[in-house]
Amino acid sequence: MKNLNIGIIGFGTVGTGVFKVLQSFGNIHIEKIAVKNINKKRELENFNNDLLTDNAYELVNNPNIDVIIEVAGGINPAFDILKAAIENGKHIITANKELLAKKGNELFAFAREKKVIILYEAAVGGGIPIIMPIKTILCANKIKKIAAILNGTTNYILTKMTEKELSYDTALKQAQDLGYAETDPTGDVEGFDTAYKLAILSTISFNKKVDINKIYREGITKITAHDIKSAKELGYRIKLIAMGQLLDNGKIDVRVHPMLVAKKHLLAKVNNATNSVMLSGYPVGDLIFTGAGAGAEPTASSVIGDLLVLASELENTDNPIPQAVCNHTETAEQIDIGDTYNDYYISVTAGNSPGVIGIIGTICGKNNINISTIMQKGINNDNTAEIVVITETSKESDIQNALKEMLASESIKNINNLLRVMN
Amino acid sequence: MKNLNIGIIGFGTVGTGVFKVLQSFGNIHIEKIAVKNINKKRELENFNNDLLTDNAYELVNNPNIDVIIEVAGGINPAFDILKAAIENGKHIITANKELLAKKGNELFAFAREKKVIILYEAAVGGGIPIIMPIKTILCANKIKKIAAILNGTTNYILTKMTEKELSYDTALKQAQDLGYAETDPTGDVEGFDTAYKLAILSTISFNKKVDINKIYREGITKITAHDIKSAKELGYRIKLIAMGQLLDNGKIDVRVHPMLVAKKHLLAKVNNATNSVMLSGYPVGDLIFTGAGAGAEPTASSVIGDLLVLASELENTDNPIPQAVCNHTETAEQIDIGDTYNDYYISVTAGNSPGVIGIIGTICGKNNINISTIMQKGINNDNTAEIVVITETSKESDIQNALKEMLASESIKNINNLLRVMN
Repeated sequence: MKNLNIGIIGFGTVGTGVFKVLQSFGNIHIEKIAVKNINKKRELENFNNDLLTDNAYELVNNPNIDVIIEVAGGINPAFDILKAAIENGKHIITANKELLAKKGNELFAFAREKKVIILYEAAVGGGIPIIMPIKTILCANKIKKIAAILNGTTNYILTKMTEKELSYDTALKQAQDLGYAETDPTGDVEGFDTAYKLAILSTISFNKKVDINKIYREGITKITAHDIKSAKELGYRIKLIAMGQLLDNGKIDVRVHPMLVAKKHLLAKVNNATNSVMLSGYPVGDLIFTGAGAGAEPTASSVIGDLLVLASELENTDNPIPQAVCNHTETAEQIDIGDTYNDYYISVTAGNSPGVIGIIGTICGKNNINISTIMQKGINNDNTAEIVVITETSKESDIQNALKEMLASESIKNINNLLRVMN
Repeated sequence: MKNLNIGIIGFGTVGTGVFKVLQSFGNIHIEKIAVKNINKKRELENFNNDLLTDNAYELVNNPNIDVIIEVAGGINPAFDILKAAIENGKHIITANKELLAKKGNELFAFAREKKVIILYEAAVGGGIPIIMPIKTILCANKIKKIAAILNGTTNYILTKMTEKELSYDTALKQAQDLGYAETDPTGDVEGFDTAYKLAILSTISFNKKVDINKIYREGITKITAHDIKSAKELGYRIKLIAMGQLLDNGKIDVRVHPMLVAKKHLLAKVNNATNSVMLSGYPVGDLIFTGAGAGAEPTASSVIGDLLVLASELENTDNPIPQAVCNHTETAEQIDIGDTYNDYYISVTAGNSPGVIGIIGTICGKNNINISTIMQKGINNDNTAEIVVITETSKESDIQNALKEMLASESIKNINNLLRVMN
C-alpha cells in the first residue's frame, strides 16, 4: 500500500475521529490540519499543535500533500478550497453532502479534467458502505428504486414519539438535550440533510444527474402524536423516507417526506439514530444496508476506507478505482410531486354529522381515489370527530383536489395531515 | 472498461443466470461454456449450442480466455480445473463456497504466485455485497463479530415453522415441493452450506485462516414445534446462525448452530429465504446487510459485479484490485465449543414431582449456571411436564455437565433440546 501524505480540513467531531483512527495506519502521514480556531482547546493526548493551521490553502498548496480529507461541511469556503486542491492535482475525500448535492457536477467534471478522484463514502449513511458498493460490486445492476432512512436525528425523534407517545416538541427537546439534535434543528427536521444525501445517492444509483432543487422535500415537524398513534393502530410506523424511483418512462421520481411504513417492512424496524438504505435493482433484487448513519467513529470508517482503497490502488496505477469516477452525462428528468402515485394517509377533523363518512367517500370517489381503510375514533368534547383514511394508490394531484373539496365542505373542519404510505 | 473473453464452467441455474444477464454488457465476450451434459435441452432462446463443451480443460487451456467463471460447485473436478486455469494465468471468479472453504488457502497461494486474482462475492450471501465491501471500503476496521443468516433453505423452513406452527418434517416437505430445499437436504439442513460460507467470511473478517474442520456445526433437524412455540412465548425467534467472534485473547470462536434470537434483534426479522450478515467492528460499529442469498439473478449480480470491476481495473493495471487479494498468513486459533460462553435455552421433560424445579435449580447452581427464566406449561397426559429454562451467560462445558446430571436424576425424563440464545 502506498505511503500517502494527507491534509485534513475540519477538526470537529468527524475530523477528530478520523485523526484518532488514522494513528494505527503506518502508511498514512498527516501533514497538516486546517481548523477555524487554532487556539481552541483540543481534547487529544500528546497532540502536536504545530499540525494546525487556520489557512486551508496551506494544505491545498502544499506539494507534499497527496490527498485532502474535507470534513468541514458547508459550501463556503469548502467549494473554493476543494477546487484549488483539484487544480493542484490532489485527490479528495469528503463527507460534505451539501457541497456534493449542490456543486457535485462541477467538482466531478473538474476532477476528471485534472485526473484526480473524489471519494465520498462518508457523505451518505455515515459508516454504512453504500457509495463504493454501488459503484463497484453492484455495477451490473440497473437500480430502480431507493427507499432510505438517511438522517439519525429525525429517526431518533420519530422513534421516541412512537415508543414513548411523546409530542414532536418534547421528543425534539429530548433529542437536543442528548446531543442528537442541534440547537437549530432545521437542517435535520426539515429534511434538508436527507435531501442532500438523496441527491447524491440517486445520482449514482440511476446514473443521471439529479437536481437537488427539484427534490420535493417535507420534514417531520407536522407529525403529531395523533398521527403516530393512528399509524400504529393501522399497523404502520412513521419514518422520514428518502425515496427515489426510476419510472418506466425513464423519468425520475425523487423526494423526501415522512411516510407510514408497514410495520412488517424492514425499514419500519430501523430505530433510534440508525440509518438504513434499501435498493431494488435488476438482477440483485432488494438489498438493505443498515448501520450508524453518523458519529465520529462510523464516519471515520468510511473516510479511512476510501483513503486506504486509494492508497492501495495508487501502488499500481495512476488511475485508481476507475469505477469510482463520477461521469454522469445525462440529466434526470425529475417529475413533479403532483404527478407521483402513492397510497395516502389523510387525517381530518370532522363535524359530528351522520353523513360525514359518506361525504369523504363521495369526494374521494369523484377524484378517482379508492379508500382502503377508514377509522373514526369516538367524538371529541367539542362534538367533532377525528377521522383517518388510508387510500389505495392514487395520483397526488387528485389527492390535493380532494383535500380542497373536503376543506370546502361544511362537514370537514380541518385537514390535520396528509402523509404517504409505504406497504 | 477492458474487453474480456470469458469461459463459464457450470450451466445450471446460476450459470444460466450469469449468461442471460451478461448479454447486456458489450465488453464481455463469452467464449465457451463447459457443461456436464452437452445434449441437455437448454431453455434459452436463440442459444448457440456451439458455445458448449463437456471438457472444461478446453476453456482453461484456451489462450483467448482471460477469466474463468466457475459456478459448477463441489471439489472434484473444480479444484483441478481451477488450478490449471491459474497455472495458465487466468483470473478466476467463483461461487463455489465448498471449494473455497476446503481448498481456499491452496488456491489463493497459487493465484498469488501466478499473479492472478480470485474473486468470490457470490460464494457468500448470494446477491448481498459483503466480500468486496469487507476487503475495500471497510478495510479500516477491526472486525470483532459476525452473526449471519447464510442459508435460505433453513431460514425458509424455520420461518414456516414459526408462522404456521408446522413440524420440521412438514415444513421441510413444503420447502422441497416449492423448490426451496433439495431432495437430499443434508447440505442445507445440517449446516454444511452455512459452515462453508462462514469459513470464508470469518477468514476475511478476522484476517486469519479459519479451518472449516474446526467449525462447530449443528443443523436445524432437531428443532421441534415445541421449541419454536416456547421461543415465541419467551420473545424469541429461532434462526440458524453463523457466528464468529474475535476474542480478547486473540482466539477465534466460530460456529454454526440454531439460536434463539431476541425478536427485537434485526436478524430475528429476516424471514423466508432472505439472508443477512451482521458485522461488528471498530470504528464502524454494527452493520447489517440483507438481501437474497441465492437464486440465479442475485447470484449473477455478484458474479458479474466481480467481473466488471476486474474489467475496469485491467484497463489501467496488471495488478487489479490489490485489496481483494487474499493473503492470510496467520492461522486462527479456533476454540472448542466447550470453551465458549453463551446464554442457553434448555428444554426438558420432567416427572410431575413437586421438587423438580428445585432439582433443576440445584444442578444449575452447582455448575455455575444462573437461571434467568424458567417456564413450566401444565402437565402432560402421562403425568410428565415440559419445562423450559433460559440461562444467563454460562460456559458450554458447565452446561454439558449440568445436562448429564439432569439426565442422571430420577426427576428428569429427557433433555429435549439445548439451544444457544442471542439477545
